[in-house]
Amino acid sequence: MSRVVCGLQPVREAIRAHGAALLRVLVEDAKDAPQLEALARFAGDAGAKVERVRRGELDKLSGGARHQGALVLAPELTVVELDELTFTPTSLVVVLDELNDPQNFGAIIRSAVALGATAIVWPEHRSAPLSPATFRASAGAVEHAVLCRVPALPDALSKLHAAGLTVIGLDASADRPLYEHPLTGPIALVVGAEDKGLRRPVKAACDVLARLPMNGPIASLNASVALAIALYETARQRAASPADAPPGAPSPSK
Amino acid sequence: MSRVVCGLQPVREAIRAHGAALLRVLVEDAKDAPQLEALARFAGDAGAKVERVRRGELDKLSGGARHQGALVLAPELTVVELDELTFTPTSLVVVLDELNDPQNFGAIIRSAVALGATAIVWPEHRSAPLSPATFRASAGAVEHAVLCRVPALPDALSKLHAAGLTVIGLDASADRPLYEHPLTGPIALVVGAEDKGLRRPVKAACDVLARLPMNGPIASLNASVALAIALYETARQRAASPADAPPGAPSPSK
Repeated sequence: MSRVVCGLQPVREAIRAHGAALLRVLVEDAKDAPQLEALARFAGDAGAKVERVRRGELDKLSGGARHQGALVLAPELTVVELDELTFTPTSLVVVLDELNDPQNFGAIIRSAVALGATAIVWPEHRSAPLSPATFRASAGAVEHAVLCRVPALPDALSKLHAAGLTVIGLDASADRPLYEHPLTGPIALVVGAEDKGLRRPVKAACDVLARLPMNGPIASLNASVALAIALYETARQRAASPADAPPGAPSPSK
Repeated sequence: MSRVVCGLQPVREAIRAHGAALLRVLVEDAKDAPQLEALARFAGDAGAKVERVRRGELDKLSGGARHQGALVLAPELTVVELDELTFTPTSLVVVLDELNDPQNFGAIIRSAVALGATAIVWPEHRSAPLSPATFRASAGAVEHAVLCRVPALPDALSKLHAAGLTVIGLDASADRPLYEHPLTGPIALVVGAEDKGLRRPVKAACDVLARLPMNGPIASLNASVALAIALYETARQRAASPADAPPGAPSPSK
């Protein structure tokens, strides 16, 4: 089984993540296309064999999606189960409670990977699937993500708690802002769909609830934005924490 | 001149922002539609006269856009010039350098309003227009925003600096992370298009450049996410700053 990935940035990330493990790497044989030349060199340097093809072939293989002259056949994404995850003192797990917008799902994967999340967990029911729309919205970040689908969220949160993680739910009605909570230990950050927030049993399974400061006349953030802010706050606290890192050392939140 | 706003959330924000100044408020006369009943009550309480109409009329007026049974004719958005802006010790101005994606523009307006930005400034050339796509992506937040279009960005940044604001450019290659900069005084946060970053003359017109921490295998955030993180960091510092607010007081970053 393989998976079509197309477009300059998604292909670049697929090459970076999989290198020689890619099944095929196809780059349009175009004149005056320095970005495509650079991409072909990048793939070659990563140990992949590059095929130069005509635009028509890419049009066919991409099934109408925007390919920008680049397409790879990549291994299927691996989706693990919760008990396959391993945890460290700097684990930073992102948990999505019934996020059903594929764009938002992809945007969350992008921010989660960029800001150092160690895994992304979501329930199999009533969630957006891992669709091409999600891959595209992740701008290639999905290639680097540790993805974990679980049967039920409250149960998964209990297991994360039992594994030593502090489970923190983002909830606009919480008493305390997120920055008042210590985030330097292993944590899971739980975010809900933006129209509904966290479901009651999910809230109940959280160790703490925390809100983000909202000073403006509207009090609603996009779910992917709220999560990115929480991941940023975690990275900030960890970089500033002398217990985890000597001054000047890179942040330990890998 | 008036402007069609449709959809439950955009209409709710238009009512909240404009109340009796709305030219028309149309709500579908539907059975078993508690959200529409609540919206009609909300409009009435805000001093607006509500017309109950058939779905077909809304379909016609919305020109095919998704209206969810609610539509208002609102006053045109006011876009001010830079010298019409006034500044205070807690001014928090957002500046966009040639953001040309209407979705991103709308997402930025939404986060900026929710996180307490006092104005949004963009250059008239090579920027996304204030289109219906932008309004929709802002989820109604545009009704509350102070919008300011300028002829040229470097010149506008010089004027913001002269008005006493510290002009901070978000730049992934900057030496210091944003959280090492004091953000409690009046500031302008400048963000570039995600594929290009800040243009050279724009960088040169900034007082400082700052980066966001990115610990993951990809080092790229969506422009609206990066800006939201910077606004959050500002709100966090201001809430924590005893110079600006006595302990326990609400954040002054209005």
